[in-house]
Amino acid sequence: MSALVQLVTNLAQRARSASYALAVASAVKKDVALAKLADLIDASHAEIIAANKRDLDSPEAQALTAAARDRLRVDEKRLKHLAASVREVVGLPDPVGEVLEETTRPNGLKIRKVRVPIGVIGIIYEARPNVTIDCAVLCLKSGNAAILRGGKECFHTNTALAGLISRALVAAELPADAVQLIPTTDRAALTTLLKLDELIHCIIPRGGESLIRYVAENSTIPVIKHYKGVCFVYVDAAADLTMAEAIVVNAKTSKPSVCNAAEQLLVHRDIAEQFLPAVAAALHAKGVELRCDTASAAILGRSSLPTVPATADDFRTEFLDYVIAIRVVDSVDTAIATINRDSSNHSDAIVTWDEPTARRFLAEVDSATVYWNASTRFTDGFEFGYGAEIGISTDRLHARGPMGLRELCSYKFLIEGTGQIR
Amino acid sequence: MSALVQLVTNLAQRARSASYALAVASAVKKDVALAKLADLIDASHAEIIAANKRDLDSPEAQALTAAARDRLRVDEKRLKHLAASVREVVGLPDPVGEVLEETTRPNGLKIRKVRVPIGVIGIIYEARPNVTIDCAVLCLKSGNAAILRGGKECFHTNTALAGLISRALVAAELPADAVQLIPTTDRAALTTLLKLDELIHCIIPRGGESLIRYVAENSTIPVIKHYKGVCFVYVDAAADLTMAEAIVVNAKTSKPSVCNAAEQLLVHRDIAEQFLPAVAAALHAKGVELRCDTASAAILGRSSLPTVPATADDFRTEFLDYVIAIRVVDSVDTAIATINRDSSNHSDAIVTWDEPTARRFLAEVDSATVYWNASTRFTDGFEFGYGAEIGISTDRLHARGPMGLRELCSYKFLIEGTGQIR
Repeated sequence: MSALVQLVTNLAQRARSASYALAVASAVKKDVALAKLADLIDASHAEIIAANKRDLDSPEAQALTAAARDRLRVDEKRLKHLAASVREVVGLPDPVGEVLEETTRPNGLKIRKVRVPIGVIGIIYEARPNVTIDCAVLCLKSGNAAILRGGKECFHTNTALAGLISRALVAAELPADAVQLIPTTDRAALTTLLKLDELIHCIIPRGGESLIRYVAENSTIPVIKHYKGVCFVYVDAAADLTMAEAIVVNAKTSKPSVCNAAEQLLVHRDIAEQFLPAVAAALHAKGVELRCDTASAAILGRSSLPTVPATADDFRTEFLDYVIAIRVVDSVDTAIATINRDSSNHSDAIVTWDEPTARRFLAEVDSATVYWNASTRFTDGFEFGYGAEIGISTDRLHARGPMGLRELCSYKFLIEGTGQIR
Repeated sequence: MSALVQLVTNLAQRARSASYALAVASAVKKDVALAKLADLIDASHAEIIAANKRDLDSPEAQALTAAARDRLRVDEKRLKHLAASVREVVGLPDPVGEVLEETTRPNGLKIRKVRVPIGVIGIIYEARPNVTIDCAVLCLKSGNAAILRGGKECFHTNTALAGLISRALVAAELPADAVQLIPTTDRAALTTLLKLDELIHCIIPRGGESLIRYVAENSTIPVIKHYKGVCFVYVDAAADLTMAEAIVVNAKTSKPSVCNAAEQLLVHRDIAEQFLPAVAAALHAKGVELRCDTASAAILGRSSLPTVPATADDFRTEFLDYVIAIRVVDSVDTAIATINRDSSNHSDAIVTWDEPTARRFLAEVDSATVYWNASTRFTDGFEFGYGAEIGISTDRLHARGPMGLRELCSYKFLIEGTGQIR
């Protein structure tokens, strides 16, 4: 066994040991650790910012895009926000221990299905220091031991933050090994980690598609994936066109860089002549590029709105930018089939006043979140009332859609008898 | 793309298309298909048995162990039983469509979390023709399209059974592609299948550990695993020794070949002198070999009961046979730590009248099913009242423990608004 394999394996073994204590830790103890962590962040601005400066000055960080460098940067304001976000989790209910089902069998066996932590969770992410705190906090609150593996550009910042987490755990008399950062940026450490299926129970990759794909292809541990959102809005023949315009503009432009932003617009043929020029003008005014199929281009051409001919790829693309692809469809059936073929099954919306049409859309669109007369932008743990979010699952197993604290849990069966045998 | 890759990809694409229709198929239609399948099995004994004879006569089948050949064999009695098992599923409630949660947000959005099928499920199994029917039936009832890949020794029998399933689907006006058998025994077809993560949503391997491991290591599709059961019974100092003896003997000997059978016995030091000779005599009378640690061997040596010194491996082994490993422990803490280290986290039991001790054991043993004063043999979908079982998950994500129809489902969020934007 190489030294690196040994290092990562030992770290995972310590996480597994810590997970037993954490699984039965009281809500109070966990909250004490979180409150202490928030205080430590508040008290350690200079230390964290100095570590962050080392990261920002490194050749790796210099090579990042401006947007990525911005995500890597921490400052006083961001650290205050980070501490506040930790304090918000303190107040949330503990998901562990809830009795999900309870039944007594004819033979007298009393079966309770109880929510418990998953165990040990590996978080694989990129150069975003806030993910270190967010994920550590949500794992801790849900009773899971966490192994963190952040981007190499962020290593010193992460090391400083992980030190604070350890101190907070120890202050609450919880095992310091409950949250560990992998102390090397060697890629081989990740590959090793992803094969430790006897010690780690779940991997959550947080980042771009190539990271997620690498993890999914190399892990023998179950992975919860958060892939892209190629989200659709379908404006039906029976839509309120004012509402439809507001929803399309909001879904596209309120935050184009996120996965629940709309990328694709489908418009029913019967209202296309009336609706498209209005919505296109509103989108254009917000700086959105319109990538059109032949039918929509013809209509918009008559309104002198600038359009770009869409390629076949555009109709399946997550632009994450001020770009939208537009198609005219002849029925809700075509809309449903198009969405089921081309969307990423994340969040898709219909705008219509026709209830039977809406019911069909809700039932037949095979996506995690299906909207009737609302913006796709609501797919979010906070908007759902979860109080926290670790991501939005595009998988269908375990968790689908926004994942909060409950979705970081498994369950087990506690069975009480009086000597029953079979 | 090779012809084989093309074949498997096309098959998966057809399954995906069929999955949309199946997901919204009525409970009645699905039950009509199942009832028709049961009738077709009853009417096709000669055809199925002839196909099975071709399998049994093949060189591959000749090479199987006697037990494996027996599992491969079908006869009149087994086919009657198979049809009856299909009819039992007809009567079960449809898991699809149940509203799991319903909430109205402060902004007026009405969010419903609704149970839906997973989508397309791949079942990978060995030379057991009954699995073809069992899995097809449970997938169909839960609205999932199924792709079946059985062992090569069983190919003709599976082809005959898959033909009946297609006929039953068509008779119920459901797409024949909703259940498909991979029409080749080429290993490369399996490797191809396991990478089709854009078309297939879940893989369930049914078989031995090497099959499951191969699937887990080669699949980019989420896998629900059903690994081994290294199940423990811990007899506490405060146990009713008569009850404890009955539970140990039942857990070990009522069906040693199954995953919920006990393989490991831990006995508290304080009652070991009294309990071990009695339970060992009862086990010995049933033909069970006793693999003992030094302490238990010393006690049983004084009773002249034949023991075998246990190896280190014995304490983590799933014997699936008339063999049990025995250790003396000095406390419930040691018992819990031993189980968490050496068990497979499947089903573990404590026998005691001391409630605080039992509560600690239930809380701290990190297994799918933890028993207090009952045999481990109850870990089973039918014993849990599920009416059906596709397996017992040893994973912690999605499903843990017995999996019935509900555990073959995912969920989605249906969100109704009146024009809400964010």
